[in-house]
Amino acid sequence: MEEKITLLKQLLAKIDDLDHTSALLGWDQQVYLPQAGAEERAELLATISEITHNLSVSDELGSLLRDVKPFVDQLDPDSDDACLIKVAQRKFDKNTKIPVDLVVDFSRTTAIAHFAWQEAREKNDFKLFEPHLEKIVELVKSMAECFKPYDHIYDPMLDMFEPGVKTQEVNEIFSQLRPHQVELIKIISQQPQVDDSFLGQKFSDQKQWDFGILVAEKFGMTWDRSRQDRSVHPFTTSFGQNDVRITTRIYEDLPMSALFSTMHEAGHALYELGFDPKYRRTPLSSSASSAFHESQARLWENVIGRSKEFWHHFYPILQSYFPAQLENVPELSFYKAINKVEPSLIRVEADEATYNLHVMIRFEIEKSLMEGQISVTHLPDMWNTLMKEYLNITPLNDSDGVLQDVHWSGGMFGYFPTYALGNILSIQLWDKINYDVSDLSDKIAGGDFVELLGWLQKNVHHYGAKYEPNELIQKLTGSRINPIPYINYLINKYSDIYNF
Amino acid sequence: MEEKITLLKQLLAKIDDLDHTSALLGWDQQVYLPQAGAEERAELLATISEITHNLSVSDELGSLLRDVKPFVDQLDPDSDDACLIKVAQRKFDKNTKIPVDLVVDFSRTTAIAHFAWQEAREKNDFKLFEPHLEKIVELVKSMAECFKPYDHIYDPMLDMFEPGVKTQEVNEIFSQLRPHQVELIKIISQQPQVDDSFLGQKFSDQKQWDFGILVAEKFGMTWDRSRQDRSVHPFTTSFGQNDVRITTRIYEDLPMSALFSTMHEAGHALYELGFDPKYRRTPLSSSASSAFHESQARLWENVIGRSKEFWHHFYPILQSYFPAQLENVPELSFYKAINKVEPSLIRVEADEATYNLHVMIRFEIEKSLMEGQISVTHLPDMWNTLMKEYLNITPLNDSDGVLQDVHWSGGMFGYFPTYALGNILSIQLWDKINYDVSDLSDKIAGGDFVELLGWLQKNVHHYGAKYEPNELIQKLTGSRINPIPYINYLINKYSDIYNF
Repeated sequence: MEEKITLLKQLLAKIDDLDHTSALLGWDQQVYLPQAGAEERAELLATISEITHNLSVSDELGSLLRDVKPFVDQLDPDSDDACLIKVAQRKFDKNTKIPVDLVVDFSRTTAIAHFAWQEAREKNDFKLFEPHLEKIVELVKSMAECFKPYDHIYDPMLDMFEPGVKTQEVNEIFSQLRPHQVELIKIISQQPQVDDSFLGQKFSDQKQWDFGILVAEKFGMTWDRSRQDRSVHPFTTSFGQNDVRITTRIYEDLPMSALFSTMHEAGHALYELGFDPKYRRTPLSSSASSAFHESQARLWENVIGRSKEFWHHFYPILQSYFPAQLENVPELSFYKAINKVEPSLIRVEADEATYNLHVMIRFEIEKSLMEGQISVTHLPDMWNTLMKEYLNITPLNDSDGVLQDVHWSGGMFGYFPTYALGNILSIQLWDKINYDVSDLSDKIAGGDFVELLGWLQKNVHHYGAKYEPNELIQKLTGSRINPIPYINYLINKYSDIYNF
Repeated sequence: MEEKITLLKQLLAKIDDLDHTSALLGWDQQVYLPQAGAEERAELLATISEITHNLSVSDELGSLLRDVKPFVDQLDPDSDDACLIKVAQRKFDKNTKIPVDLVVDFSRTTAIAHFAWQEAREKNDFKLFEPHLEKIVELVKSMAECFKPYDHIYDPMLDMFEPGVKTQEVNEIFSQLRPHQVELIKIISQQPQVDDSFLGQKFSDQKQWDFGILVAEKFGMTWDRSRQDRSVHPFTTSFGQNDVRITTRIYEDLPMSALFSTMHEAGHALYELGFDPKYRRTPLSSSASSAFHESQARLWENVIGRSKEFWHHFYPILQSYFPAQLENVPELSFYKAINKVEPSLIRVEADEATYNLHVMIRFEIEKSLMEGQISVTHLPDMWNTLMKEYLNITPLNDSDGVLQDVHWSGGMFGYFPTYALGNILSIQLWDKINYDVSDLSDKIAGGDFVELLGWLQKNVHHYGAKYEPNELIQKLTGSRINPIPYINYLINKYSDIYNF
């Protein structure tokens, strides 16, 4: 049995190595690839991905998992080995339940759809994307059906990103949250508005970079295990527990954009850098879920990075980097400016008060499509109706509306809700940290994040994928994913900023 | 048969993709890897290399090669498909003739020996490396013996890098060349020496970088298919025909070092960028041999980059980059300074007049070790004796003597001679180019390399690995590898510089 376990772990390590190799191919593709190398890079990625897939669904893996089952059944279910093999089994089941033909069809369809989506977005013509999306919806439904029985056809898609979380639960969470956020932005819209015009000045690229690095280091990033490069879209990726990389991009006329992106990606990276070293090269060296990953990014970016305490320490430093632009702007004005609420068309630019509403629109649409309640051709209408209902604005065109996100062209159904669940989790964790760590506000106001990071490492990061998201948050807070703390957080924060 | 050929090419393409993936892992390791990621990177490399090796020696590949043999035998032997399959068969034979146990033993031994060599070099203690090198020599001999029958036990090692070139031929080439180079440096030592003291000033890093980029672009490098980054040791690598990358390092007090390294690596890169696109993802998308690869690097670095004509155009530009350092240095003085001859201890710092002698010492030692003529323990003595005989200097210690190169710790026997053969080839090609292209000197003196590169692309680069090195040089010049042109080149060049 010992030997079988060893063989299983060796095979899982090999798959892990291949995943990390693909990640490097992808990182380089977005960061340093010469333009003409794109086609060949796609071939390298396809080859590695084919080899990885073949190993992931191999009879070898299947029979090793079968062989070790009697052993696992005798283990303490909370032991690392039991959890490791449970997670490996879950991934194997997911990989093998979908027939190869469907996987291939899905890859081919989404590869073509991606270009169609780009063109449709550029030309502001949803009709160009429509037939591709129709096919994708059919394929996604077929994929979901491989996982019957389920309570809801959306469940298997959600489960890819949030193990154990069901559609019904997300429905309830969002139903609770939505009216509060809709009401909140209505109230805010009736208050005197915040002035952020001084952020429209020019802020030098190099100084923005340097300030971002300074903040990332203060958060706890160290460059012996990480690095930051530039890419068109910021992201975090990892090639091992000791090589987790982030990227950013800098706009000289949008000075906060790069900084918040660095904080966000540092949050992701600190999570991956915190996995228990003994989980190295196993399926446990991974996040509990996409929402948990997002919760870490949001915690550092929003809860810390957009807080009064943070800027109490860092605003004078930022002023010293940009005296011409900021010396006459008081700290409180700056704090209010970076927290300005404004319902807008684009999700990725949304503020904390409106962000989740963007997500909920997508969740409703994905469900309706999979349930067969609406057809793809009616998507722009549904989009615009929900935008009006939730955010009280209407897109001028589909490019800034239903066509704005890349996800659907890649068949990535089930992912959107994790953004909002991540926000919710970030505040559940935040409340618990403040309960456990005394004077946390003072520490942050002193630019000291050591205890905060330590708490996260001990209570979240080091577990990796050992627990499902609801298991982990319950273990930590006694409650499943729960939007109430987030509602309170929003109301407290914005009632102060907008004086209501 | 069609189908078998297709399957064979698909498998070869997959192996090519894996090789390029390893190359990216290696590039990133040397260029951007965070320090703590080293151990995990070694694991990724080992996994990809194991997968590649398994495919390269697989029964699948062996039987496809067997299956297509009757078809290949009917082809024009000069056709691409015939050459492609011949090269694939040659690689397969090399990979399969060495038993797996020996491959594994070799990997393990050299991995350990590398650290022993580093320590020995640091501590200037050959004895620390000696037992490791003894084992390596035994393993290298065992590997060579897998290729019996041969004329000389060194032949199979040489053949790894120079297909079809035999030890006896290299003996003859070097015997012809050596006395001329020994005599040349003796004569030079008796002439008034060249002053290069002005090169000891400080030359800014950024300006050195910019000038190197300018020259590389003039040579024909374009950044849509390439890029230059920094690494401790400069190198060229490729992840496809449209993604060939070079690296350099800059010393502010050694201003020519980075520039010549950029020219050298650009020469390597232009070769790889010039392979026929129809050879993409096949074994023909590779150099004819290591010496041919080196000939391209040396041609651009030395024959062009250290020529009067080149500097006639570029020296005023260089002066404009570094006015404080160079405005009072005449063009001719600069030209002489960068061609200063000085027998020195370290191969990689050697000038054109002495370089090959360093190589010949290593070649003699490798042969003697493999023949069993000397034992490893006597290596320092043999080294120092030959240094005295060829270069008339004696190392003060083994770190700057027998321990200076990394190659032997990696079991890389047979590679050194290719450096000198590359020099020789570069001048055979150069003479032929000048015969074919009228007014080439004038063009270079005008900073115009278009016809030179065009000639190389048409006559050398685009063939890739289709021909063996002697076949290719014979096809181009009517002669096999031949040192006479190189001897003439050296005498002409240095009699002018040193007035004899």
